[in-house]
Amino acid sequence: MSTYKLVHRPENSGGTIVRVGNVEIGGGEFVVAAGPCAIESREQILETAALVTAAGARLLRGGAFKPRTSPYSFQGLGLKGLELLEEAGVATDTPTVTEVLTPEDIPAVAQSADALQVGARNMQNFALLKALGSAEKPVLLKRGLSSTIEEFLLAAEYIIAHGNPNVVLCERGIRTFETATRNTLDLGAVALLKNITHLPVFVDPSHGTGRRELVAPMARAAAAAGADGLIIEVHPNPDQALCDGPQSLTPPQFAGLMSSLRALLPALGRTVAAPQKRSRPVTFATGA
Amino acid sequence: MSTYKLVHRPENSGGTIVRVGNVEIGGGEFVVAAGPCAIESREQILETAALVTAAGARLLRGGAFKPRTSPYSFQGLGLKGLELLEEAGVATDTPTVTEVLTPEDIPAVAQSADALQVGARNMQNFALLKALGSAEKPVLLKRGLSSTIEEFLLAAEYIIAHGNPNVVLCERGIRTFETATRNTLDLGAVALLKNITHLPVFVDPSHGTGRRELVAPMARAAAAAGADGLIIEVHPNPDQALCDGPQSLTPPQFAGLMSSLRALLPALGRTVAAPQKRSRPVTFATGA
Amino acid sequence: MSTYKLVHRPENSGGTIVRVGNVEIGGGEFVVAAGPCAIESREQILETAALVTAAGARLLRGGAFKPRTSPYSFQGLGLKGLELLEEAGVATDTPTVTEVLTPEDIPAVAQSADALQVGARNMQNFALLKALGSAEKPVLLKRGLSSTIEEFLLAAEYIIAHGNPNVVLCERGIRTFETATRNTLDLGAVALLKNITHLPVFVDPSHGTGRRELVAPMARAAAAAGADGLIIEVHPNPDQALCDGPQSLTPPQFAGLMSSLRALLPALGRTVAAPQKRSRPVTFATGA
Amino acid sequence: MSTYKLVHRPENSGGTIVRVGNVEIGGGEFVVAAGPCAIESREQILETAALVTAAGARLLRGGAFKPRTSPYSFQGLGLKGLELLEEAGVATDTPTVTEVLTPEDIPAVAQSADALQVGARNMQNFALLKALGSAEKPVLLKRGLSSTIEEFLLAAEYIIAHGNPNVVLCERGIRTFETATRNTLDLGAVALLKNITHLPVFVDPSHGTGRRELVAPMARAAAAAGADGLIIEVHPNPDQALCDGPQSLTPPQFAGLMSSLRALLPALGRTVAAPQKRSRPVTFATGA
Repeated sequence: MSTYKLVHRPENSGGTIVRVGNVEIGGGEFVVAAGPCAIESREQILETAALVTAAGARLLRGGAFKPRTSPYSFQGLGLKGLELLEEAGVATDTPTVTEVLTPEDIPAVAQSADALQVGARNMQNFALLKALGSAEKPVLLKRGLSSTIEEFLLAAEYIIAHGNPNVVLCERGIRTFETATRNTLDLGAVALLKNITHLPVFVDPSHGTGRRELVAPMARAAAAAGADGLIIEVHPNPDQALCDGPQSLTPPQFAGLMSSLRALLPALGRTVAAPQKRSRPVTFATGA
Repeated sequence: MSTYKLVHRPENSGGTIVRVGNVEIGGGEFVVAAGPCAIESREQILETAALVTAAGARLLRGGAFKPRTSPYSFQGLGLKGLELLEEAGVATDTPTVTEVLTPEDIPAVAQSADALQVGARNMQNFALLKALGSAEKPVLLKRGLSSTIEEFLLAAEYIIAHGNPNVVLCERGIRTFETATRNTLDLGAVALLKNITHLPVFVDPSHGTGRRELVAPMARAAAAAGADGLIIEVHPNPDQALCDGPQSLTPPQFAGLMSSLRALLPALGRTVAAPQKRSRPVTFATGA
Repeated sequence: MSTYKLVHRPENSGGTIVRVGNVEIGGGEFVVAAGPCAIESREQILETAALVTAAGARLLRGGAFKPRTSPYSFQGLGLKGLELLEEAGVATDTPTVTEVLTPEDIPAVAQSADALQVGARNMQNFALLKALGSAEKPVLLKRGLSSTIEEFLLAAEYIIAHGNPNVVLCERGIRTFETATRNTLDLGAVALLKNITHLPVFVDPSHGTGRRELVAPMARAAAAAGADGLIIEVHPNPDQALCDGPQSLTPPQFAGLMSSLRALLPALGRTVAAPQKRSRPVTFATGA
Repeated sequence: MSTYKLVHRPENSGGTIVRVGNVEIGGGEFVVAAGPCAIESREQILETAALVTAAGARLLRGGAFKPRTSPYSFQGLGLKGLELLEEAGVATDTPTVTEVLTPEDIPAVAQSADALQVGARNMQNFALLKALGSAEKPVLLKRGLSSTIEEFLLAAEYIIAHGNPNVVLCERGIRTFETATRNTLDLGAVALLKNITHLPVFVDPSHGTGRRELVAPMARAAAAAGADGLIIEVHPNPDQALCDGPQSLTPPQFAGLMSSLRALLPALGRTVAAPQKRSRPVTFATGA
């Protein structure tokens, strides 16, 4: 007897499809979300948005409220960051996903973004999970650093039991004794989750490895393990990123990864978005 | 160069004393907090309070807002639980400590209890930490299940940097591969923290082991490792506890532990409270 | 400055090819080794050998000397097992790999098998590693349950520094807090090893997951992460296996996995063996 | 139903006493073994032996065969080291304990030393465990870096089932995510082992913390958790030690630790050796 109910695969044996804007997660298309760790400026997010969507990203990610280990680290642009992400999403016609840290921020974030991310450190912030049950946007729930698969599913169960069935799980690496990688990406958990639950499963190989050179092979491995999509950190100039530079791809590296996924996914019975040819470039005024 | 500033030992090399009501933590007295995991009823908390304080507990613990892994588990009595804890504290003339889960609950909890506990799963709930910076009560900060000592100290740094210098750290066991105990109580962390920081350090051997029969030896080991006090789960009838029964001591077991601590602490250069002889029993009306 | 020398990628930047019998590991072909955890009987190993090689396995595995956690578990057939494995290898014209537990067993095992396996629990049995430096057969070195990547590479360095350059590394899952899978298969380590060292890297998804239903997706994920091959447990009747039944594939499941690898590998720029059509069945007398 | 038999507490509910030379482990006396990580020279081991025994050490430790992570690290003096340790033991009238790495070294080590140590990396070297079943000296079995308590007990079960009942278990820290200490000393395991098994339990706070300043508090904590003794690394000049310098105590630090143990142990109902007053100093010729 399992301790979870609503997330259990037999509840929806065909698999749940979660819609983020016009994008379907959990269906035949393998969906890639991309963007910077933190929204740093209008230019940065708009440029990144243009480049990652051109390469085939179907969702745009970027952090406005940043949970940082040290109180002295950059904490994100907050509401201003939300506005910039929304502008970038509109400019590229791409749904957005961003993190929410507290129940009281949910209304503003849900108004502005197309999906709400729960970070690893908040996976068992039960007040937040309960409040997300009332949100009208889907939730991307990241696995906690030391959360078991059972705890991960029960966190999703909180959100669903409180009214919101649109949850995408995201494996992002667990904490182990190994220090050569930032975390240990647990792709066995992905394969197991696909058996246990009907919810879609994403993978974050950026946090899962912490090393830029490992992101592409682990992205492909995630696809092969059965993931429904990826969330990838991309920065136009990783060396100057205010957060997570060492694990961020450059836009050309991201385009290369997308190209290799287009070669790989058909062999796994799935599709992935083609590069986007725009009739005109994404333009944006240089004023604030 | 350390990444933390305010918690660093040289900031207060003599060691910080945190006052919870009339009790001093971090001084010459080894302080024991005790009480049930969850406040379940008026009788339960009043009876437990009377028994643990008679045995020498100087602080009363009890959960009103419970963070539970499953949405289907008992979530605590909430505000009603707060009232009962306050009543028990008054009845036994003992300061109280209870967990707070969200920034919006802080005012009510700080009004009612003498110290605010941050649970392991919220150790990196940065919105909560920041809000506790403005609270006018001391904070008992539990180490996260997979938090490094550096992350633990930086969580304390958040609270202090936001205005509240009264933080007691609490080692409560970390998550490892070992399953014979609920967690692995990291007493080496206690010894190390006493070197690095001026903040007092508590130990929770109840969660740290998850097994009643190990609580007393690990409580003594914590004292020998240099801890400033303990937080212990005690329930009048552990087999019927709504939470954490297997790791809860019975009141007689708790009294036995206190007795052994009184034998031990002088050899470590510290004192611990004597059993309390009341002129009259703690009485309480049976009505609501 | 790295702490290892001979295993470092610049020592052989094109990558080392290790030959096991007539099979090359580390080249363009993705190599699959398969067979039972333990050799149990002549019929069992010959039947398994016939079936896995027909499905495309290029190496035959099987344990004669078994390191078991309990002294009361089946410890393997020993020298008799070695003979049976050799017979099965000859009958199917397939090189064999089997575990060696002590320096004194090396001559007999190296005489009989085509590659010598060092199990996870012996990865830092330095006397064994040194003795393998003098062995005239290649070594399949499994990563220890809690060994860092650096320790893993230094174990290989021991073998090479003592004279034997033919080492294949094998990621087989590490021990973490997660209990839903037997181990946590660390495919990020595979991608990282391919960057750091010139040695070929195998993956063992059987031990890496401990669950039969996860072996195929993790085998594909290993290929996508850049592994040079796999080692897979296959048993004609897993429910009656004397060891590791729950993680053993049936022969039809193994054939299905091979088929899916043949669909996948070309998209990763590699080949994998076709199913083997024999002119005549592998036959064997029923006597001892 | 437990998976172990001979180590189970009911097999000898009063607790097993293991004799190493004239020293009893597991009785009323708390026994401290001390000495250098590696035997480096005649002067070093004789000087250390004289100093630690004067301070109250009842056993002398020192490594002759050293298992080292890198093949390029000092591997110990081997047989010459054994001779020097024996000489130091005779000179100070103190039984000795040293590590054995392979079955073939057992006769020489058992001839020379009074107890045979199995290191953490060999805890599941089953060939070694079986061979120790025939040894005529007691075994100090260290817990593996990532061994569960059950695996630890089954390793002891191997030795006993093969004929040698004289096994002392030794908790020496497990591998976790925490990097501030070398290992995480699991004193909860000590308390649990004392419940489960009749075998004596030692603690190694030197490896358990990896930091000199934490050795004394964790040594005291081990005593309070119920350990039967300690094994401590002491070096006359830790900064120049060929191995484990950062975790080695100086002789005066060791004497201070022993003094604090003499204050503590009576409060725990045990005794510990007084400092040894010799009628004449331990002298040794300066020739080789």
